[in-house]
Amino acid sequence: MGTINRVLIVGGTHGNEFIGIHAVQRYQAEPQLVRRSSFETVALLGNPGAVTTNTRYLDCDLNRSFNPQAHWPGSAYEVQRAATLRNQFGPCGDTPADFILDLHSTTANAGIMLILDCLDGFTLSLAAYLSHHHPEVRVYSSAGSGRQSDSLRSLAPFRLCIEVGPLAHGTINPHLWQATEAILQTTLDYLEHHNLDTLPQRPPITFDLYQYLQTLDYPRDAAGHLLGMIHPHRHLRDYEPLEPGDALFLTFGGEVVPYAGESTVYPVFINEAAYYEKGIALCLTEKQQVTII
Amino acid sequence: MGTINRVLIVGGTHGNEFIGIHAVQRYQAEPQLVRRSSFETVALLGNPGAVTTNTRYLDCDLNRSFNPQAHWPGSAYEVQRAATLRNQFGPCGDTPADFILDLHSTTANAGIMLILDCLDGFTLSLAAYLSHHHPEVRVYSSAGSGRQSDSLRSLAPFRLCIEVGPLAHGTINPHLWQATEAILQTTLDYLEHHNLDTLPQRPPITFDLYQYLQTLDYPRDAAGHLLGMIHPHRHLRDYEPLEPGDALFLTFGGEVVPYAGESTVYPVFINEAAYYEKGIALCLTEKQQVTII
Repeated sequence: MGTINRVLIVGGTHGNEFIGIHAVQRYQAEPQLVRRSSFETVALLGNPGAVTTNTRYLDCDLNRSFNPQAHWPGSAYEVQRAATLRNQFGPCGDTPADFILDLHSTTANAGIMLILDCLDGFTLSLAAYLSHHHPEVRVYSSAGSGRQSDSLRSLAPFRLCIEVGPLAHGTINPHLWQATEAILQTTLDYLEHHNLDTLPQRPPITFDLYQYLQTLDYPRDAAGHLLGMIHPHRHLRDYEPLEPGDALFLTFGGEVVPYAGESTVYPVFINEAAYYEKGIALCLTEKQQVTII
Repeated sequence: MGTINRVLIVGGTHGNEFIGIHAVQRYQAEPQLVRRSSFETVALLGNPGAVTTNTRYLDCDLNRSFNPQAHWPGSAYEVQRAATLRNQFGPCGDTPADFILDLHSTTANAGIMLILDCLDGFTLSLAAYLSHHHPEVRVYSSAGSGRQSDSLRSLAPFRLCIEVGPLAHGTINPHLWQATEAILQTTLDYLEHHNLDTLPQRPPITFDLYQYLQTLDYPRDAAGHLLGMIHPHRHLRDYEPLEPGDALFLTFGGEVVPYAGESTVYPVFINEAAYYEKGIALCLTEKQQVTII
């Protein structure tokens, strides 16, 4: 692939995820922090309206608004914001972005998660580089979840989402702040090395890739009201194996609801606050070991 | 003191604190769970409007709206709600509450915190009873913070707030759910024993009482924009001693801001999401050992 000419760093795609918001505002005030010699860096608040209200969104989730087939009304703030961003940074925009780095946080125990939407060679090499420099990262492939085509970062041909947690929306965890900054800087270094063809030799890198399978919802009644929660044995245990029959939910009345699947899976995004309204208690993944030469 | 005739269990005083909301909805559907022989129990959503929108409040914080000197406009939803609740459950209301048990949660690492607004003998005896049965509880005195006169529970002559955390708003932690239920049931048992004069003999109980002193704000610029966060060494360390000169905040640029006070204090409510807008990073307390005979 060719040169990366413009990198977009986005925070506040969800207006209550403070780490990305404050990081972007810092880079806007001090652009030298994210400057590299071989590409332009633009730091941007994804959803400034929702940042003002400290809410995920105003009318609809901006990070599900970039698919032209989305069924949101055209008057929605986020639909208009998506059009503005597409006209500026999309492939046919005024200043197209070649790479988008989107900074997110979650109430789930994600640790430091890299979200890959595509498993092309460039993206896998980036993930390998980041895993090598930051062995604590977890690598999640969202391919199949829809984020390939409806997320803000889908505007660019190459992208990475850094997702950190557990973090209550509207707050900052200093450890997750520092981790986000470190991964971001290493990502910019990688892009610079790529452009200058100075990527150092490294040994083959092996990491676990958690590939999206499907979502599961909480127990609910016919009207959609919540009837239970994550089982205490499963709470905060993202990335750990879930076997058929394992306790998964606990109803408010104390009844255990086991996992009804037929194979071992690896849940992520367990108990994300913003997913209650989407009918998602957790995402199931399969775990694959990947070696990048 | 006399008989407790009516107990109000309130959840959803803040509309995004799910444990209290779902607990109250469960008690409304299954009132036998909170029934006792010697008093009437009423389970109530404090702020049903904010529950609908899954936000702390609609116009202003309901739990700061019960002081007639509050400066909110009379048209605010919560001011009207406060008047409705006062007319029903206040001392001159249709069905006055003798005891209010208010269920809250916080993004701070509160553990299981009992909040006492008053340090009268009845309330201290209740706290001792709960400490005896649930040694994991922490006891916090809010006297001096304003909650004595502006909170929903200030409608009743006697009250208790159960505050659990860390919990992201809009989510449920199953361990904190179970702890809330257990403390609530023990509280109802205590009130029943009090009414029936059947409180069992117990040894003197000693517990630590964390008494509110003052609040501290995050580093901010002149316009009020956040400039930093809780220092990594202090993050999640509620109830632990903070000594003069200890690292307290870390600016986004990496500068350490030490605690400038002159004596040892014990922070609580560190990094509560809803307090960012109030200009509160944490509450300082002094720790006293109390023995209840």
